[in-house]
Amino acid sequence: MKILQNMNLSDLLVDCQRPEISVDKITPVIEGIFEEVRSNGDEAIKKYTHFFDKIDLEDFRVSQIELDQAAEYVSDALKSAINLAKSNIVKFHKSQEVTKKVVETTQGVLCWQESRPVEKIGIYIPGGSAPLFSTVLMLAIPAQIAGCKEIVLCTPPGENGSVDPAILYAAKLTGVSQVFKIGGAQAIAAMTFGTNSIPSVYKIFGPGNQFVTAAKMKAQQFGIAIDMPAGPSELLVLADSSCEPAFVASDLLSQAEHGTDSQVICLADSAELIKTIQAEMELQLNDLPRKEIALSALEYGRFIISPNLQYSLDFINQYAPEHLILAVKDYREISLKINNAGSVFLGNYTPESAGDYASGTNHTLPTSGYAKAYSGVNLDAFVKKITFQEISKSGIQNLGPAIELMADAEQLQAHKNAVSVRLNQLKS
Amino acid sequence: MKILQNMNLSDLLVDCQRPEISVDKITPVIEGIFEEVRSNGDEAIKKYTHFFDKIDLEDFRVSQIELDQAAEYVSDALKSAINLAKSNIVKFHKSQEVTKKVVETTQGVLCWQESRPVEKIGIYIPGGSAPLFSTVLMLAIPAQIAGCKEIVLCTPPGENGSVDPAILYAAKLTGVSQVFKIGGAQAIAAMTFGTNSIPSVYKIFGPGNQFVTAAKMKAQQFGIAIDMPAGPSELLVLADSSCEPAFVASDLLSQAEHGTDSQVICLADSAELIKTIQAEMELQLNDLPRKEIALSALEYGRFIISPNLQYSLDFINQYAPEHLILAVKDYREISLKINNAGSVFLGNYTPESAGDYASGTNHTLPTSGYAKAYSGVNLDAFVKKITFQEISKSGIQNLGPAIELMADAEQLQAHKNAVSVRLNQLKS
Repeated sequence: MKILQNMNLSDLLVDCQRPEISVDKITPVIEGIFEEVRSNGDEAIKKYTHFFDKIDLEDFRVSQIELDQAAEYVSDALKSAINLAKSNIVKFHKSQEVTKKVVETTQGVLCWQESRPVEKIGIYIPGGSAPLFSTVLMLAIPAQIAGCKEIVLCTPPGENGSVDPAILYAAKLTGVSQVFKIGGAQAIAAMTFGTNSIPSVYKIFGPGNQFVTAAKMKAQQFGIAIDMPAGPSELLVLADSSCEPAFVASDLLSQAEHGTDSQVICLADSAELIKTIQAEMELQLNDLPRKEIALSALEYGRFIISPNLQYSLDFINQYAPEHLILAVKDYREISLKINNAGSVFLGNYTPESAGDYASGTNHTLPTSGYAKAYSGVNLDAFVKKITFQEISKSGIQNLGPAIELMADAEQLQAHKNAVSVRLNQLKS
Repeated sequence: MKILQNMNLSDLLVDCQRPEISVDKITPVIEGIFEEVRSNGDEAIKKYTHFFDKIDLEDFRVSQIELDQAAEYVSDALKSAINLAKSNIVKFHKSQEVTKKVVETTQGVLCWQESRPVEKIGIYIPGGSAPLFSTVLMLAIPAQIAGCKEIVLCTPPGENGSVDPAILYAAKLTGVSQVFKIGGAQAIAAMTFGTNSIPSVYKIFGPGNQFVTAAKMKAQQFGIAIDMPAGPSELLVLADSSCEPAFVASDLLSQAEHGTDSQVICLADSAELIKTIQAEMELQLNDLPRKEIALSALEYGRFIISPNLQYSLDFINQYAPEHLILAVKDYREISLKINNAGSVFLGNYTPESAGDYASGTNHTLPTSGYAKAYSGVNLDAFVKKITFQEISKSGIQNLGPAIELMADAEQLQAHKNAVSVRLNQLKS
């Protein structure tokens, strides 16, 4: 990791710029897949599964038997861990439920919001070397709490055409309606248009590579909502002399092992502290199976020697990290000044791993600076809020004249008239 | 308006299909504008303002003097009406504030969400024959409540290069930071990239024609969030014998006058009721200045004779109207069964106009079926929710082993190690 110091903030931000989420180059590929899935449905899915996943499947759906049997292939210890994580995720996301508040804005004018679930949602779980069952928990649990009626999960088939039991166990545990062995852009297209075997959904969630991200952005053009565009994962640690260098080192490495494009940054208030953290990282690196990936990511990592707290805060808020660890003495006070971040971890005993798996917060978070405008996935992501209003006779008499004036000023006479006919009837 | 009956639901939905929000055809135009604004900044804005708005402006910014003087050109009656609307919109959106709830998910593991404003937002207000000052209220008021620091407003210059005083009055009243006389896709591009005179923002709100909608979708590709894609406005009225036919007629016409592409649908339980409503519409139409627009929209409008309530509910929830009026006897009970709609108006004295202007609810709502997955604009649209967590020594001892197991099962050893180093230190 390069060590930076004495840089003004704008140069620093340029130096720490993430790769742009550019989908232009692969757009034609994605458009081709979407067109074919729209026209040919399951046949197109079969073709692309053969092409990308090197497997021929007649039936994409994971059977009820496979789902039921999955638990047998998951160790009891892991099942207990998953159950604890589930319990915490449930508690935290249930706490986000809001109660209806009826507001009388003018005498006789009642207004309120009510939450309704997004009825059909799709969850995409990437394939690859490790089974990301934790993401199943993070997306299906709030969906279930929200009351989503149909929860469709797509994940690429493994080499033998099966899906990892831990994913199936998590899916069954969290009320997923149907699991399909379909990966990549073809999965997103299937959930966008629906096919004979795969239902269409209203909103698609979940991480994925650039093809999946580009496909989710394409899906938006067909009226499908998405959680957010996803770029490479990021961690920023703010450290001072109160931190435990070995802990900071372990956190930076946990981010670096995600992928060669992971973004790892550490702001510290002294060169000595950085040296100590670096030494700890070298020690810990040797034991990591994903050492090569981590090393590769760390080439682009940054240590920044910060001259003062304001500089650090300005950088953090303009960088808007996905994950932020405050390994500093006054972390509570400083946390109040964080405006842009996905999820914040306070103090020495709060590793990012906790939020990734089991503390209860969601791990689907805005990357690439999206934290400036997007929340991470939470209960809100699975509901819409509908406004309701009920106006009494006296209410329209109180409010009506103002509406008439405003509609008139906007030259919308029929809008005005909708009030006038009511007021006239009440006069007579 | 065509009268439909005895149709099965899927045929009915096909018949009532909205025009697809297709941006493909104009994408090259939008891309050209974006490229040029990105490269040439203000010069490009000048060029497009000359081209589209037929006016040469040296300075796009509305001066403080213009803003201060606007109040003089707005009648006192209209100012009072705007102030009443503002007061109601404030009350309703303030009621959406959520208080921080700290949840101890496991002993020693504290998790919570905090809201933070989207720091910089852009508001687009379309030009055209009427000054849409009501939309300024609907977007700037919740932005102000949320605490957005920079609120930029763009609206096309009028023939003489000025902006309607009612818009400026509303902008000043609601804390808009800067107003610019820029319209169309070039305004959206300016707020996306920033120019010498126009600041870039993190999220763009507001209605507009297909160019503005396409530009907002393009802006998303550069990491800018948007409120939602906007299609033509829609109203669905559910009426039974308890309704006042003249009121229903006035509501249908208020929707029809918006534009020739407005979507107007009325579900009623008898052919007689429809006849009465139609007769009322013909009466009222004659007095409308925008009669031609309304007539043109009504050509595509639909009366549907519904065989029973379930049919009506199924249609409503699958159509997912932007505005829904329940002019029926049991409107409270029925409202509980509405899953997909933008905003719902209950009973005979609650015209859509009330929500458009002054009751307090927001009028920026999901069209084109987006209500299946999107909320209308509310306070949430102007904030992000950041998750925080703070774990104590005993907390990580309670939760740590589960995290280690799960990280191990996902083959992420560095994630596991971030917990192990902490647990090991606590053991020693």
